[in-house]
Amino acid sequence: MSAEVICIGTELLLGDIVNTNAQFFGQQLASLGVPHYYQSVVGDNPERIKRALQIACDRAEILLFAGGLGPTPDDLTTATLADFFDSPLRERPEVLAEIEAKFARRGRTMSPSNRKQALFPDGAEVLPNPTGSAPGIIWQPRPGLSVLTFPGVPGEMQCMWYESAVPYLKSLGYGREIVHSRMLRFWGIGESTLAEKVRAFLDLPNPTVAPYASRGEVRLRISARAPSEAAAREAIAPIESQLRAIAGPDCFGVDDDTLASAVGRHLCALDATVAVAESCTGGGLGHALTSVPGSSAYFRGGIIAYQNAIKTELLGVAPELLARQGAVSADVAEAMAAGVRTQLGSDWAVGITGIAGPDGGTDTKPIGLVYVGLADPNGRTTSYELHLGSWRERDAIRHSSVCNALDRLRRQLLACCYPDGSVPPL
Amino acid sequence: MSAEVICIGTELLLGDIVNTNAQFFGQQLASLGVPHYYQSVVGDNPERIKRALQIACDRAEILLFAGGLGPTPDDLTTATLADFFDSPLRERPEVLAEIEAKFARRGRTMSPSNRKQALFPDGAEVLPNPTGSAPGIIWQPRPGLSVLTFPGVPGEMQCMWYESAVPYLKSLGYGREIVHSRMLRFWGIGESTLAEKVRAFLDLPNPTVAPYASRGEVRLRISARAPSEAAAREAIAPIESQLRAIAGPDCFGVDDDTLASAVGRHLCALDATVAVAESCTGGGLGHALTSVPGSSAYFRGGIIAYQNAIKTELLGVAPELLARQGAVSADVAEAMAAGVRTQLGSDWAVGITGIAGPDGGTDTKPIGLVYVGLADPNGRTTSYELHLGSWRERDAIRHSSVCNALDRLRRQLLACCYPDGSVPPL
Repeated sequence: MSAEVICIGTELLLGDIVNTNAQFFGQQLASLGVPHYYQSVVGDNPERIKRALQIACDRAEILLFAGGLGPTPDDLTTATLADFFDSPLRERPEVLAEIEAKFARRGRTMSPSNRKQALFPDGAEVLPNPTGSAPGIIWQPRPGLSVLTFPGVPGEMQCMWYESAVPYLKSLGYGREIVHSRMLRFWGIGESTLAEKVRAFLDLPNPTVAPYASRGEVRLRISARAPSEAAAREAIAPIESQLRAIAGPDCFGVDDDTLASAVGRHLCALDATVAVAESCTGGGLGHALTSVPGSSAYFRGGIIAYQNAIKTELLGVAPELLARQGAVSADVAEAMAAGVRTQLGSDWAVGITGIAGPDGGTDTKPIGLVYVGLADPNGRTTSYELHLGSWRERDAIRHSSVCNALDRLRRQLLACCYPDGSVPPL
Repeated sequence: MSAEVICIGTELLLGDIVNTNAQFFGQQLASLGVPHYYQSVVGDNPERIKRALQIACDRAEILLFAGGLGPTPDDLTTATLADFFDSPLRERPEVLAEIEAKFARRGRTMSPSNRKQALFPDGAEVLPNPTGSAPGIIWQPRPGLSVLTFPGVPGEMQCMWYESAVPYLKSLGYGREIVHSRMLRFWGIGESTLAEKVRAFLDLPNPTVAPYASRGEVRLRISARAPSEAAAREAIAPIESQLRAIAGPDCFGVDDDTLASAVGRHLCALDATVAVAESCTGGGLGHALTSVPGSSAYFRGGIIAYQNAIKTELLGVAPELLARQGAVSADVAEAMAAGVRTQLGSDWAVGITGIAGPDGGTDTKPIGLVYVGLADPNGRTTSYELHLGSWRERDAIRHSSVCNALDRLRRQLLACCYPDGSVPPL
């Protein structure tokens, strides 16, 4: 018994969007231990959808569809499934009522075209969509064949997956032996360097350890197959502590932790506050810090000093300093941190100034040159010079600037929390 | 005659990586005018690869494979193709020599396992890989059937595509007719509402018009098939102007435009500056505005007033107002905008205050309640009350807050640029 993923949408074939839904299905099926051998993508065309459907029926017993549940004429999934399995479509009044209610809640009136989203094949159950308008179906059109449909919008699809599809698959007997994973997150070390350090762990059969890297962050995924999540956690724990002992402060968190949440955790432990002064990141550092729920407990606020005049007027950076060193310099980064710490009355403060490009680079100060300034509770300032690569895109340089600033702050906070250098619990 | 994409790799089925190669193939085939109706993903398993191959042979005449060209035992693409088409594998000395040379150039010695990368089916041509070790093949195993293989590493695959696959496809007669697209971008209108307004256009044969939606933004993609890009542009232009006349100010841009770049365009036209005061978005609005290269021409900076004390101290929001109306109120949003406009000496200013959740919501002020305040060059302030949905995630609410704030500013700027309500050129 296996599952097959069919993503529907001409925009996928045209490459307008990348198929993250297929990736999500893959991860989820693996974690539930559902075998999964094929994925396919087909456009908004009934005949081709039927052809793909025929092939999938011959190969799998659980068919997962994403896309084509919208209100527009090229949303054909439900109608095509009904046609293929010879089951008439009927409007479900309760579904229609709920769609109308959702529009009403947003102060909008439902347009007639949304009416088709209430059409369901006979015998199909409604797969509720708590966040969007289009519900999906859970249907056994033939004995031993399950068909589940989801909208293409990732947020809606994932919410529906967790709330309805997972319980359904468990009712079919899956998830008895589960795969539970724990992701260790690292900043400030390269993938190959980390892989070398933990080489011995990469060949373990169960739990397995696999490295991943993206946008400067490196991750180690520890995955255990076990009868229960508790048993999996037990198997993972010793591996994790060994890995973290090897990696030391380069490991900033696990699972959903971010550099920002790690910073928040340490600030809470120290009962301290932070403020930010940003130039090239334009607010990205504040935005990252406040992405953490409850960040108002330690984040005072910040000053986006994008133009030099603001650096002087609001942050008290001396005009001579700006003239002598230039806005992109270690001294200015430290002065920005010191200035915002005073202005906002925070314990800690971070200043960022740099050249994100695509213009503004020079031989002495190339694109990708970024300075991070830190001010500690005693007003002592330090700074870090970053070379983020003149070949890189503006967005990548700004993102990396924010991450590196958070990481520098994190390491200073960590040293305050654990002066003995011990590995903190996560 | 159509092409089909087959991506090979168990890591794709496990969701360890997202299938960006399929997206790249899709974009490229579309731009060359090569019909492309199906994509599939299959794991590192010879029998399943053959099964997928059999299906693809029945549906398409050009098969594009990505993945499975590496040196490890689970890299099976070439061997499986040779087996399927009954063609013996032979080692190509010139390929082996080149692989060894590549390793030598990087100061490394080739490991024996790389030797298999020099094995090619009889009759297959080498598809050179300038950047990596594994070359691909260009092969016509049967009359009228072309098979091209690429490594899974996107950088290598793309380089090989441009250097060898594109010329090959042109030699087959493709690329004479190309497909050129233009994406119209909308904010402030739902997908179904827009689709109904432009319903008549959605059935056009060429150019075609198709709606997409994601995270509150709606897009209309106009795609024209034509002998040249110039001819395609000519065919698209009248459709675009009709669509934009229908949509009016809801259309904020085309192609790579963003709400932030639209705001920037209008500010430049008015030779005006802007500043931001942010609470719940924590710097996200400034970050968005500064994502546009050259934004220093009009973006002065901002104040992230995350805690109420900062709203008072730095933005001059009256403590009584905060006490009476609460930080999340229309008056405070306007006061924040007015305050930052004065503080930073900008022409325009935006203030955002709201409840992003997951905590902090009440019956009268639920999660998702956000106020956007605008101050214009005369100091007049207006505000907008947004209900972004108490069921939505913190990130989604913050993202939507930033987009809506940009959109409100954009519409006021647009009205200044085009008082007669005419449709601006894009």
